[in-house]
Amino acid sequence: MIEVRPLPLPLRHAFRIAHGSSTERTNALVRLGEGFGEAALPPYYPTRITDVNQWVQHIRPLLDAVLARSYVPVTSILEALPNGPSPARAAVDMALHDLWGKRSGLPVYALYGLDPEAMPVSSYAVPIPQDRDELNRMLDEVATFPFLKLKIGSGDPAWDEDIVRITRQRFDGTLCVDVNAHWSIDTTVRMVDRLQDLDLAFIEQPIPASHPDDWHLLRRMMPSCPVPLIADESVQGPDDVIALAGAADGINIKLAKCGGILAARGLVALARSLDMQVMLGCMIESSVAMTAAAHLGPLADWLDLDGPMHLKDDPFSGMTFQQGIITLPDGPGLGVIPRNN
Amino acid sequence: MIEVRPLPLPLRHAFRIAHGSSTERTNALVRLGEGFGEAALPPYYPTRITDVNQWVQHIRPLLDAVLARSYVPVTSILEALPNGPSPARAAVDMALHDLWGKRSGLPVYALYGLDPEAMPVSSYAVPIPQDRDELNRMLDEVATFPFLKLKIGSGDPAWDEDIVRITRQRFDGTLCVDVNAHWSIDTTVRMVDRLQDLDLAFIEQPIPASHPDDWHLLRRMMPSCPVPLIADESVQGPDDVIALAGAADGINIKLAKCGGILAARGLVALARSLDMQVMLGCMIESSVAMTAAAHLGPLADWLDLDGPMHLKDDPFSGMTFQQGIITLPDGPGLGVIPRNN
Repeated sequence: MIEVRPLPLPLRHAFRIAHGSSTERTNALVRLGEGFGEAALPPYYPTRITDVNQWVQHIRPLLDAVLARSYVPVTSILEALPNGPSPARAAVDMALHDLWGKRSGLPVYALYGLDPEAMPVSSYAVPIPQDRDELNRMLDEVATFPFLKLKIGSGDPAWDEDIVRITRQRFDGTLCVDVNAHWSIDTTVRMVDRLQDLDLAFIEQPIPASHPDDWHLLRRMMPSCPVPLIADESVQGPDDVIALAGAADGINIKLAKCGGILAARGLVALARSLDMQVMLGCMIESSVAMTAAAHLGPLADWLDLDGPMHLKDDPFSGMTFQQGIITLPDGPGLGVIPRNN
Repeated sequence: MIEVRPLPLPLRHAFRIAHGSSTERTNALVRLGEGFGEAALPPYYPTRITDVNQWVQHIRPLLDAVLARSYVPVTSILEALPNGPSPARAAVDMALHDLWGKRSGLPVYALYGLDPEAMPVSSYAVPIPQDRDELNRMLDEVATFPFLKLKIGSGDPAWDEDIVRITRQRFDGTLCVDVNAHWSIDTTVRMVDRLQDLDLAFIEQPIPASHPDDWHLLRRMMPSCPVPLIADESVQGPDDVIALAGAADGINIKLAKCGGILAARGLVALARSLDMQVMLGCMIESSVAMTAAAHLGPLADWLDLDGPMHLKDDPFSGMTFQQGIITLPDGPGLGVIPRNN
């Protein structure tokens, strides 16, 4: 049984980031036999569910052959797949890992030899507030979390700074900011200076993704930047990571961007080879994609896997998220279970 | 039970390569509970069995803790190990993979999601002959093999050329040469020209390993080199691979050089990211180390895993080698079994 269907994800609150505001997302659920995968389809990336479906139909003969085997050589299969949209590849990769784990009786973290006790704490994202009152209301809900990520890049750098400063006055946990590519190089240099007393763990993707050389220019302008800079939108595959070596301090790896668990594992190894920090991040996704990423969590320096926390209803159970502390399910494969099937 | 003991390996014939000639080698066998690993200790590398033993004793508390667990999170454990000599790390890595596989009931290839049917054919090494008669006698034995590797770098480039030319006159399978770092840059340029009509699959490590920049110089001198150049002695860890990007066409990954199966898997991913070919190679090793490397075989473009074929007695059974066609054992872990215990 091979199926692609819409996975509607109504959000708990309208979620405002620099790319825009959402109240609902619709991802794609891919099912291969007993394996589940998810393609994140945010409106600001080009892939649509018809693209996912087309690609899955395109590789269907290969997938049918896999389903007929008792042993699923996922690495060999994935390396033989033709190119396709990254979120679609990621969904098929997750479903094949789920299948591999279920048929071999092991959770995915065990297939990668990882210790589930060695998970870093995850950040929790605070969307861009409209004003101080809204920021304070949002912070009331998360005051006891150990690690917050402030979404900034509001269009007004002074308000960006206020958001961080107000938060820092009342929050002494680990704090980072995500600009989602909405500062210029000059604004970044100025903001790094203005924010440097606020003990930020890192600044994520300050500048636009379109010109990787800008990262090197930024590094030359701030050879001793006091805050690590982590690339997100600028990083999809290995070429991007190599291009950023020496310029970005770390990369945010998301399964939907790089094409799945196996590709993410490769990027982690590559980033380590280049002495870069590793973050594992997410889109707005259900527990299917989130749990898939979480299985690689023990490899990361930073986790940003709060996706399902922003959903009104999560159509699957999987990993749990208690104020940033992530616990992996022990079931075979991804360990995710549909809630209403 | 944690044990390090000598593993004597008498050779079938004296084996002459550019580094010297051997009639026997002694490696180290590392045993961790039910897991086996092997440290290759060739005389031209600095590690001795006392170094292996010292390092294993140094990490013994960690290994004892691992042996007490039913689940062995090999990746997490290996990433937490302190530095040590590469052959010692490789032996511990192999033994942990063996343990991981045995405790989870899966062969190592399955833990890496690989298809054992997708193995490339392995080369078989022909040592440096003293004269034409010896070369012809050696070729008589391997005339029907599909893939031969000629050891050259004899000290006399004219004889090196004769070795290849004589072989090519009577052998039309896949042919490559391994210079073991014994040509200068100038000799390499000249020899590439002289050998270019002989349809070589690649030339391995023509130049000394001491100066990685020499690879870039060589590339500038031969921007369109007609034969791929593969680095062996020049490559140990990820830094070396990155340093050779754009200069070498591929790398020879050996577990004893890079520190084991997990590190080798990372180097494969790195080489792929850099568009480099991947060879999996060996030292003079028993079926323990050879089978460990062979489990990653489906990831490689080229295999050079003929080690046990050069032994008078192989103390273990594991993979089989039929004229270069390698078959992996199906047992859990490495699938190697001592012959006389």
